[in-house]
Amino acid sequence: MVKYRPGLDSTFAALADPTRRAILTALSRGEGSVGELARPHQMSLPAVMKHLRVLEQAGLVSHWKTGRVRHCRLAAPALKEAADWLSNYRLFWENQLASLDRFLKEEQDKETSPCPKRKPHPRRRSR
Amino acid sequence: MVKYRPGLDSTFAALADPTRRAILTALSRGEGSVGELARPHQMSLPAVMKHLRVLEQAGLVSHWKTGRVRHCRLAAPALKEAADWLSNYRLFWENQLASLDRFLKEEQDKETSPCPKRKPHPRRRSR
Repeated sequence: MVKYRPGLDSTFAALADPTRRAILTALSRGEGSVGELARPHQMSLPAVMKHLRVLEQAGLVSHWKTGRVRHCRLAAPALKEAADWLSNYRLFWENQLASLDRFLKEEQDKETSPCPKRKPHPRRRSR
Repeated sequence: MVKYRPGLDSTFAALADPTRRAILTALSRGEGSVGELARPHQMSLPAVMKHLRVLEQAGLVSHWKTGRVRHCRLAAPALKEAADWLSNYRLFWENQLASLDRFLKEEQDKETSPCPKRKPHPRRRSR
């Protein structure tokens, strides 16, 4: 069902950090310079650049320069590849969550339903 | 658009390894014992157990025991959370890939179209 794709190692590793995810979120709204991307984060510019390098190596971000300003943009293919890999499991989790829903509903019904009627005792056989 | 979810750090980190992804793929076909899950991999049982622990800590796998046998199953919610996070970018990558397609088509059209007609020289004004 799911083939091994080496690019996924670096993509998922890059996504495993909140700062890098926040940078991707910012870039999904539009391209930005490194300075603009660094502004919301309480960390040095070199630290942000390090995160950007990880994102670039994973193919999630590309950059170009205008003079001394480095601009970044989000790159679609790596994001899509990761989403495609996870979507292979969609049917699985939909089934599992639906089963859980059914189970919880049945348990709730048992709790809220009136006491079950007692079964009548089987009649004693007349000897 | 995208909220910070701490669980995503461990989920994406767990997904950044081919053995762990292969284990998840195997479990998507059905529950399995640790021995069954280890069989396709050329590594020791403790090494596979270590990967399973990472998957459990990320909430991607749960386990139960029957006697001394440890059984594992895939857990839907963490997988769904990661897929949901990535799906926030679906519109972005669909637009970007569509733009790329348009650009490539335009370039191809330019290459295959016959030579453009020369513009007629503007008539010289009669003095």
